[in-house]
Amino acid sequence: MSLYSGLSAEQLRVEFEEVKQQYDEFKARGLDLNMARGKPSPAQLDMSLDIFDSVNALNGYKALDGTDCRNYGNLTGLDECKTIFAQALGVQNNNIIVFGNSSLNIMFDYISQCMVKGAGAEPWMQQGKIKFACPVPGYDRHFSILEYFGIEMVNVPMLETGPDMDVLEELVKDSSVKGMFCVPKYSNPQGYTFSDETVRRIAALKPAAPDFRIIWDNAYFVHDISSEGDSLLNIFPEAEKNGTEDMIIEVASTSKISFPGAGVAVLSASENNIRMIKQRMNAQIIGHDKINQLRHARVLKDANGMREYMKRHAAILKPKFDIVLKTLDRDLMGLGIAEWTHPNGGYFVSLDVMHGCAKRVVELCRLAGVVLTNAGATFPYGLDPNDTNIRIAPSYPSLDELRDAMQLVCIAVKLAALEKLIEEAE
Amino acid sequence: MSLYSGLSAEQLRVEFEEVKQQYDEFKARGLDLNMARGKPSPAQLDMSLDIFDSVNALNGYKALDGTDCRNYGNLTGLDECKTIFAQALGVQNNNIIVFGNSSLNIMFDYISQCMVKGAGAEPWMQQGKIKFACPVPGYDRHFSILEYFGIEMVNVPMLETGPDMDVLEELVKDSSVKGMFCVPKYSNPQGYTFSDETVRRIAALKPAAPDFRIIWDNAYFVHDISSEGDSLLNIFPEAEKNGTEDMIIEVASTSKISFPGAGVAVLSASENNIRMIKQRMNAQIIGHDKINQLRHARVLKDANGMREYMKRHAAILKPKFDIVLKTLDRDLMGLGIAEWTHPNGGYFVSLDVMHGCAKRVVELCRLAGVVLTNAGATFPYGLDPNDTNIRIAPSYPSLDELRDAMQLVCIAVKLAALEKLIEEAE
Repeated sequence: MSLYSGLSAEQLRVEFEEVKQQYDEFKARGLDLNMARGKPSPAQLDMSLDIFDSVNALNGYKALDGTDCRNYGNLTGLDECKTIFAQALGVQNNNIIVFGNSSLNIMFDYISQCMVKGAGAEPWMQQGKIKFACPVPGYDRHFSILEYFGIEMVNVPMLETGPDMDVLEELVKDSSVKGMFCVPKYSNPQGYTFSDETVRRIAALKPAAPDFRIIWDNAYFVHDISSEGDSLLNIFPEAEKNGTEDMIIEVASTSKISFPGAGVAVLSASENNIRMIKQRMNAQIIGHDKINQLRHARVLKDANGMREYMKRHAAILKPKFDIVLKTLDRDLMGLGIAEWTHPNGGYFVSLDVMHGCAKRVVELCRLAGVVLTNAGATFPYGLDPNDTNIRIAPSYPSLDELRDAMQLVCIAVKLAALEKLIEEAE
Repeated sequence: MSLYSGLSAEQLRVEFEEVKQQYDEFKARGLDLNMARGKPSPAQLDMSLDIFDSVNALNGYKALDGTDCRNYGNLTGLDECKTIFAQALGVQNNNIIVFGNSSLNIMFDYISQCMVKGAGAEPWMQQGKIKFACPVPGYDRHFSILEYFGIEMVNVPMLETGPDMDVLEELVKDSSVKGMFCVPKYSNPQGYTFSDETVRRIAALKPAAPDFRIIWDNAYFVHDISSEGDSLLNIFPEAEKNGTEDMIIEVASTSKISFPGAGVAVLSASENNIRMIKQRMNAQIIGHDKINQLRHARVLKDANGMREYMKRHAAILKPKFDIVLKTLDRDLMGLGIAEWTHPNGGYFVSLDVMHGCAKRVVELCRLAGVVLTNAGATFPYGLDPNDTNIRIAPSYPSLDELRDAMQLVCIAVKLAALEKLIEEAE
């Protein structure tokens, strides 16, 4: 295949007619497929059916320390559940709090706490306009939290090594910049893992704001797909070297290990932060669902058990990522109209199409029965400045559905590019 | 027995020596019993063991509408779970949101929302000093929420009919008074149920603050102990007559129906309030634990199923409340040093001892191995102005333990009174 940019007006029209016919054929098939979110597939969920019966009358409902998990009590979570995450994240149990089923909820509540009570300084709500650095493209639900609280979002470009640290280091000289959300391993949507240098530079940040907080959303901490997964440097020891450990709030969950709707989520933080969070939790809740924590501790057993468990997920996910990447290679390589990432883990592939074409590609797919994540969703306020980024979420569809869907995506990428090139040629 | 106030100094000393000896005998027995909180007993929790197996590979994990409850999605909760609570609370399903395991968490988050985003007016945090009316004695965890957010608490006396409405109606003329927490049925700690007139007067309140909110903590909505339980007037139809339905935020839970640590909690509110809460939840969480919602829907079945279920709890709790009341009658009646309530449901008996003696009674019990709720806990800031109120929580101990504990409580009440009367006589 040759570069679209090298085609004459006549060649563009010929190519357009051909691609348009392929598109119309797809449309006639009446596909009905939703690839908007990173949802595990039923086959992945079936892996965890043992969780249901791991706590019951037969198998008991008491924690290792004898706690009757059915009753009230235990603010920070079961110790055996803390241990699994502490091992996997490389922290101590007393730096871990186990919550309910949602790390998003943990992050929202933490920002809410900072708004109302501050992070060691004045409440954020009493500091006038405040801002967050937002690596872009990024995770739409991070942006939604910031938008809800009226925190201004400032874009920071994501490189293959993580956020552009030159930009970030400059930005944090502004004391109204109070923090950053990021996904340091298998970033959403690119699947990039922050380099050791990036982690060290983040740990060494000296923000003007004393109450600067980085929400280290380690959503994919054990979520390798390739047998050689990426390795993320543990940020806490690096932060301790710089005395910045209070700057980091890490979260993780089993949403994509056991059940997205009924897993457990954890927070890891410094002693100071744990103390402030416990102070809030003391007023907020008597204790999260210990029964579900016990279920997870019993089934996952330890960090190694969890990693072994994740290999079974990888075995299901790998063929899906292969389809995405092979179809993109086959249908779009060499046309000069798209670029995409090649993640070793996580849940997404990031696809950049011709400037000004992302919305159109998503629309074309939708009209042919395949719902993708909204174009723009990967940027604050839904505004992709170049209208170029599309998040591909291959986990939920079956292999056959995914083959069809990716073929359609590639056709839509070509069609949108051709429409634009023809319009420009006229 | 005769009134302590009628005894001579000599008679007081004789009585003191006798009671002191009874106390010392108890102390020598080395009891070890915690009655600080309203925890269901293991026997009550054993009622719900079926919940564990109600959702599993064999029994399935899909909701009635086909939703795979294991996966992401469903912000406001499963419809079959909403229906049970909607029936029991006398509201519509679309006025219900099902959350996680904690109604306390729902209440905290709602106040947090009001602080940051307001309740239809300016954020509470931007309105300077604000206050809440607090029926006293009341529930310590309500006070903790208010204290956490720095909301000033103003005492309103609880009568047998509910909050003193004359005081409350006067208080809400102050526009800085933004709301009230209350437990309208089987109040904590007295077990009083608001009279129909009180409910109507609350629904008819015309607070100066347009963003006044009543947290209607219906914690004991189906928690009768006597066969003839109290009846609480449904406040929403009354509020609608007055156009005050946005003023009411009702919460309830299964914490004392199934498992305190692993139940489900719900909120019921007007369309306006549901919309604002959903707006927050959209940024806060993808969905609460639907698997646990499904477990509860399957086991409780419907509102009648839930009420039948509660009769089994009552059968366990009734003998315990009987021990409390019979022991108080036997050991303290006619001495003029204590008064107590006779609830038809809920989890507590409220015991008022001689002025200035509550702390001492709790201390005496603690020194003899029985931990009661801290004296003062039933008042804002832990300050019982007369040092008189003690909350008795009889649910957790066995019948034998409770007999001992209540005998000790009565001895301690007498001893503290005698200490005080002797001191005053000297």
